[in-house]
Amino acid sequence: MKHILISDPTLRDGSHAIQHKLNVQHLTLYAELAEVSGIPVIEVGHGNGLGASSLQLGESAISDTQMLETCRNILNKTKLGIHVIPGFATINKDLKNALDIGVDVIRVASHCTEADITKRHIEYCRRREREVYGVLMMSHTAPASILAEEARKMQDYGAQGIIIMDSAGAYLPDTVKSRIGVLVDTLDIPVGFHAHNNLGMAIANSIAALEMGATILDGTMRGFGAGAGNAQLEILVAVLEKMGYETGIDLYKLLDAADTAEASFLKVPYVDSTSVVSGLTGVFSGFAKPVDRIAREYNLDPKDIFYELGRRKVVAGQEDIILEIAVSLSQSSNIGVTPSSRQ
Amino acid sequence: MKHILISDPTLRDGSHAIQHKLNVQHLTLYAELAEVSGIPVIEVGHGNGLGASSLQLGESAISDTQMLETCRNILNKTKLGIHVIPGFATINKDLKNALDIGVDVIRVASHCTEADITKRHIEYCRRREREVYGVLMMSHTAPASILAEEARKMQDYGAQGIIIMDSAGAYLPDTVKSRIGVLVDTLDIPVGFHAHNNLGMAIANSIAALEMGATILDGTMRGFGAGAGNAQLEILVAVLEKMGYETGIDLYKLLDAADTAEASFLKVPYVDSTSVVSGLTGVFSGFAKPVDRIAREYNLDPKDIFYELGRRKVVAGQEDIILEIAVSLSQSSNIGVTPSSRQ
Repeated sequence: MKHILISDPTLRDGSHAIQHKLNVQHLTLYAELAEVSGIPVIEVGHGNGLGASSLQLGESAISDTQMLETCRNILNKTKLGIHVIPGFATINKDLKNALDIGVDVIRVASHCTEADITKRHIEYCRRREREVYGVLMMSHTAPASILAEEARKMQDYGAQGIIIMDSAGAYLPDTVKSRIGVLVDTLDIPVGFHAHNNLGMAIANSIAALEMGATILDGTMRGFGAGAGNAQLEILVAVLEKMGYETGIDLYKLLDAADTAEASFLKVPYVDSTSVVSGLTGVFSGFAKPVDRIAREYNLDPKDIFYELGRRKVVAGQEDIILEIAVSLSQSSNIGVTPSSRQ
Repeated sequence: MKHILISDPTLRDGSHAIQHKLNVQHLTLYAELAEVSGIPVIEVGHGNGLGASSLQLGESAISDTQMLETCRNILNKTKLGIHVIPGFATINKDLKNALDIGVDVIRVASHCTEADITKRHIEYCRRREREVYGVLMMSHTAPASILAEEARKMQDYGAQGIIIMDSAGAYLPDTVKSRIGVLVDTLDIPVGFHAHNNLGMAIANSIAALEMGATILDGTMRGFGAGAGNAQLEILVAVLEKMGYETGIDLYKLLDAADTAEASFLKVPYVDSTSVVSGLTGVFSGFAKPVDRIAREYNLDPKDIFYELGRRKVVAGQEDIILEIAVSLSQSSNIGVTPSSRQ
């Protein structure tokens, strides 16, 4: 029976869905549920990772230190993980502190064409003898050959596995298959996939990835995550079980845990109209909330903003462009070029 | 560019999600939205189809006649469809009345091994020169060869297309592919697929079906439907567009329509823990609401009831078994055999 490593970013990607307002009670409950269900790794922190709490990206309710210490005190078999984007997280302050608290697993992430920025962070984690992975975000925006090249850099830096993210939920299964296939052929380390559900394909894309040799899959309870949400963990585990894969997670306990977490703080995401357009245009799911807010302020259709964001190929961290586009769209509509005529 | 016929049972399968309480305002709004968006066919009625309103299955808020007349008065390009299960709907009263009102498209449905019961209904619709399809429900419970045999019977009766339903949301894409492949090879008429999302595969299974030659797909706005819901229509149309298929539906207008319908009466379904078990065990999604209700009454875990329903291979119409199982489970738990020890 083939083993799949499930990594659960409910307490990290899910932060996007509640404006990064996870508190000690949420974290305590979830860490306990993860431990009971046998989830191998949970990722904890601000939606954009370690050190990303800020006015522009949204401020966390509590500090990185509080979040990590809360979970560290509870977790035993379940490993404590973090998502780290160099630029948001410095080595000497943020990363050192997280490792001192006792983080087990570090994922160092960059835009899919910028692996170079992960070198020092990956090397630092290896020197301190932690489990470290490289993550390529917005992976749909680069061809398979470039992804393979960037992933190989991360492998050379010392990454022990590579995860590609479908940050906009833009993939269909065939595209996932071809990309994962190239990565599995190119690399000497495990390959993983992180899905979003904008085109309803989060589970199907995850299964497509493992059929091509991926052995690491991300999933969150109820799909709790940015925009249309992630691969729903309970479904993922059920389907893997049905297909004869082994995850070490107790499905029955996981289903109970999801009911408990939902009753407490999980918001169940769904694919709204904006999410569909976000998936079609390939814009990062984390843009959904600010786009909706700014569209309301400027009395615009959020779908029009997403089309324009897609045309400009924006990436996370460029949220200020939303406002610029909104201003420009509302000026156009004042001179008779209505958003709907843009179709 | 290949054309796919989209049929939309929002106002029929969605009835399950609101205890069949669709009213004239809901129907009027939705028919107008369907017409504006260019949806080719909408199916209207009680969740279990024409003539199914009853104490056991749930009573419709308004009569079949009122529902059909309301939509008939609005629809022009969009065709008016009904779902008909012989046994619930008689020919001389229910079906004659519906055709007199001006229904354009009739789907005559049976359990997947009982096509014989559809003969007289299909023949009647053909005599009255309407568009008529055969539907095989709970199609995951029979092997491909039996499905092909039953579908061929419906073709012989005069059906102009065959739709197989994944009534429990139990399929994975590979199983869909093998079944649709056999049907397409066997039949001389178009083949269609009706998905449910219990295992998160509604969109992926629909795409798998069309890759094997299916040309009719069912989808509902926001996935509004029994249990975990159907294939979400807006996503389906977006993905088909991305893949280069043509549906005649205006995606942008459809997304606006879904926003409007959601603000009015659509409940957005999601895959709760009961739905996952329903998909895994292969039990009809329409059982979800009564199972949840009875589980609460008897202080049982709905997942335990679903496991037992799956073991007994129940089909729609056997809802009285839920109570029997609940009584028996609560007696077992009183003598020390707890539901969780059943795992």
